[in-house]
Amino acid sequence: MSFPSRHILALCGSLRAASLNLKTLRAAVRVAPSSARLTIHPSLGRLPLFNPDDEAGDPAPVAELRGEIVRADALVIASPEYAHGISAVIKNALDWMVGNESFMMKPVAVWNTSPRAYHAQAALRETLRTMTAVVVEEACIELPILGSGLDEDGIVSRPELAAALRSALASLAAAAQRP
Amino acid sequence: MSFPSRHILALCGSLRAASLNLKTLRAAVRVAPSSARLTIHPSLGRLPLFNPDDEAGDPAPVAELRGEIVRADALVIASPEYAHGISAVIKNALDWMVGNESFMMKPVAVWNTSPRAYHAQAALRETLRTMTAVVVEEACIELPILGSGLDEDGIVSRPELAAALRSALASLAAAAQRP
Repeated sequence: MSFPSRHILALCGSLRAASLNLKTLRAAVRVAPSSARLTIHPSLGRLPLFNPDDEAGDPAPVAELRGEIVRADALVIASPEYAHGISAVIKNALDWMVGNESFMMKPVAVWNTSPRAYHAQAALRETLRTMTAVVVEEACIELPILGSGLDEDGIVSRPELAAALRSALASLAAAAQRP
Repeated sequence: MSFPSRHILALCGSLRAASLNLKTLRAAVRVAPSSARLTIHPSLGRLPLFNPDDEAGDPAPVAELRGEIVRADALVIASPEYAHGISAVIKNALDWMVGNESFMMKPVAVWNTSPRAYHAQAALRETLRTMTAVVVEEACIELPILGSGLDEDGIVSRPELAAALRSALASLAAAAQRP
């Protein structure tokens, strides 16, 4: 049984140039199965800080992100933990999207490059559920990349990591098949 | 027994012009006891989104906030909950302060204008503890202002609210007495 290819949008919750989450997403683009076309949002750092007074007339970077999310069949969020909490960068993107309902019923996979990021992952999932997104558990993965020294090529070349990314994307693409 | 007046810096986690948290902080300035001089940070909306690559040379608004925090004897944080999570605005300010240790051993009161903001308050406290701030429990208050229609004058004129604010500031000022 084969599925048409699904478009998956990836959001990175770190602005660090050498972000492990970003390296992981770039590696995922390279190992994606044919059922998943993965594109990475250029940078959530373009968004202003959330101001409810500006929700009615979305700032341009907010409107662009909303359009990308609406057009995507599913989302991957890869985001770090800072001080036992969600990164402000990803929460800021979510705060802008609460009112426009772009996450409603959207299949989402939460990825994690550190096994220690318990609090941030739990907070991210709670907010996604509150936004009525669908967290696809079989597409959520923890990759032990923190401290490994691996870069994008290294992730791609490690068979177990490449397989985990490929499998997660395949599961997410399958969950994103419309009935 | 009398204490010298303590300087308390207030941070508002909402950028909304009609923010209930901001109204509450403004009311608190007016009812503060003589032991507490309360000033409100102009706007956390001036900060850029946190980028670890820029930590070494703090952007100007970050350096200004850090200086204000270091000079303050204690802090009040009044912040809303968005989608069962901490507001990105306050978390962004905290993300910038993790590395410079400006919160270390700083007495902090967490204020809340909604009795429903359980998740955001818990996340804020977890992050503050991780930053080794001292959450002063007797100075933390929940005020039932959400849905009351009260503005700053209304808060000041309600004896039970004014007393709660005054008492919280007195407790925070007392906790901020250096040994």
